[in-house]
Amino acid sequence: MSRFPAPGDIKAAHQRIKSYIHETPVFTSRSINKILDSKIYFKCENMQKAGAFKYRGATNAVLSLTKDEAQYGVATHSSGNHGAALTLAARLHGVKSYVVMPRSAPSVKRKAVENYGAEIILCEPTLQSREENLEEVVRKTKAIFIHPYNDLRIICGQATSCLELLDEVNDLDMIITPVGGGGLLSGTALCAAHFSSGTKVIGAEPAGADDAFRSLTVGEIQPSVNPRTICDGLLTSLGNLTFPIIQKYVERIMTTEDQYIIDAMRLIWERMKLIVEPSAAITLAVLLKHEHIARNKKVGIILSGGNVDLDNLPW
Amino acid sequence: MSRFPAPGDIKAAHQRIKSYIHETPVFTSRSINKILDSKIYFKCENMQKAGAFKYRGATNAVLSLTKDEAQYGVATHSSGNHGAALTLAARLHGVKSYVVMPRSAPSVKRKAVENYGAEIILCEPTLQSREENLEEVVRKTKAIFIHPYNDLRIICGQATSCLELLDEVNDLDMIITPVGGGGLLSGTALCAAHFSSGTKVIGAEPAGADDAFRSLTVGEIQPSVNPRTICDGLLTSLGNLTFPIIQKYVERIMTTEDQYIIDAMRLIWERMKLIVEPSAAITLAVLLKHEHIARNKKVGIILSGGNVDLDNLPW
Repeated sequence: MSRFPAPGDIKAAHQRIKSYIHETPVFTSRSINKILDSKIYFKCENMQKAGAFKYRGATNAVLSLTKDEAQYGVATHSSGNHGAALTLAARLHGVKSYVVMPRSAPSVKRKAVENYGAEIILCEPTLQSREENLEEVVRKTKAIFIHPYNDLRIICGQATSCLELLDEVNDLDMIITPVGGGGLLSGTALCAAHFSSGTKVIGAEPAGADDAFRSLTVGEIQPSVNPRTICDGLLTSLGNLTFPIIQKYVERIMTTEDQYIIDAMRLIWERMKLIVEPSAAITLAVLLKHEHIARNKKVGIILSGGNVDLDNLPW
Repeated sequence: MSRFPAPGDIKAAHQRIKSYIHETPVFTSRSINKILDSKIYFKCENMQKAGAFKYRGATNAVLSLTKDEAQYGVATHSSGNHGAALTLAARLHGVKSYVVMPRSAPSVKRKAVENYGAEIILCEPTLQSREENLEEVVRKTKAIFIHPYNDLRIICGQATSCLELLDEVNDLDMIITPVGGGGLLSGTALCAAHFSSGTKVIGAEPAGADDAFRSLTVGEIQPSVNPRTICDGLLTSLGNLTFPIIQKYVERIMTTEDQYIIDAMRLIWERMKLIVEPSAAITLAVLLKHEHIARNKKVGIILSGGNVDLDNLPW
């Protein structure tokens, strides 16, 4: 197995991307702190370019291409946020992009990818169909495949959100991120281990798509089969690069039912006036469900994204 | 007529309230700048305590009470944001509050006022009913009436948002605020005249409630009669304190139809991930309608509030 990224790799990624990304703000909410008897620091990746933390990893990947690679463009499969982020990052650096996307992806996410200028290849909503379509694109175009999470350039890019958060807030007891494929969670866990060893990192996962929880329990990657949750960004399985990092550095995975996620999302919308998607609100949801976890603690939360279909809200 | 507030009055209000309010962030949006070919700076009063700029004026008014006055509490009539803001400001300083509120007020605003601990007196949605009910409350309780806008303490408090904006962004060509009763607009216009004389101030008003526009045209206050707009915060008429300030210091009032307001609101939600209410989005709406106004200009916008009923969105 390849070595885990070192502190210098994360710092280098941040140097590489920082003039192209937003240094997103960190907000607190007195009323949410009161509800949880805790001090929560929300790192607002929903306000990142393309509306999600994915822009960090995508930018790092695009800027890591050689000139030779860049001329053929980049390709990926994505239910949305990674596709949009990669397309935008590619376009801003003059690189072509191809995105394989399930027909079932939310229209708001598909439209974003289209608007940013990708060539979209629609597929069935199965891993097999995604991979087959992607292989064909790569074969035809020689585009460089940028995996949504199982790629060290992506993991180091996603880690930079945690790096900024640690720079702004000292002595966090824990940081919570959502977990889908594990790019954000593994990057965050590595970053905290390297730069703030007293800070535990916890993954938040839908109870209806709890493959990461099961993977940690069993000790090997469990596939995500027929996931049922409103968190459309958290449907995928862990990868062979993200899993061992998570295994080594993540304190635990906590799961929660969709009802807590909807409640948390609404709380963030109403009290903080911030638009976050269900896959982001899940971080607060695990604290609403397991109240004792955060009590009297200083907690960082990565609000991972804000790409919601405003015509289909979950309440 | 009483003298207009001087620069020192606005500075004094800011000193008085600044440790109790949020110094709200200023955000920009590359994509909105691109649409308008302009540089827009959004001052986020939607993230102010109680969800609107009204908390500034309310806090200034409560902190300006004498000890004798404070013991009887404060009273007001309000369709929502001022009532919530005054109640919260009063409670945090141990002062009782009474709010006369039309039965037709959005439930989210009424709930906020209730939760903050006011005694609510429901009335008919007419100015006459509001005033009669308020007079009775004041007579019974000796509470001090804090008018939602026609009060120099309120005007100076609302002016402090502009003061912070000018402190953060230099050389603004113009600032746009919504106009209902004129508290925010008159405060902003005074503040800009005192501290940034090259910055024009423009009021944004619903075409279906254009009494301020007509008042400036005619040269005397025109009542708001049967206003028809989704901007529930902009239904009231100007006051005898706000009107002369607006007359003297505001460049012009621009009106827009509700469709532009809904489009602007959605644009801010989608691109900036910020929840703003229609009465706040109207500022961007006038720029969408009259595109030439902002072209190549540096424009400040006061996003006045974010109290929206999430179960009744206008799209």
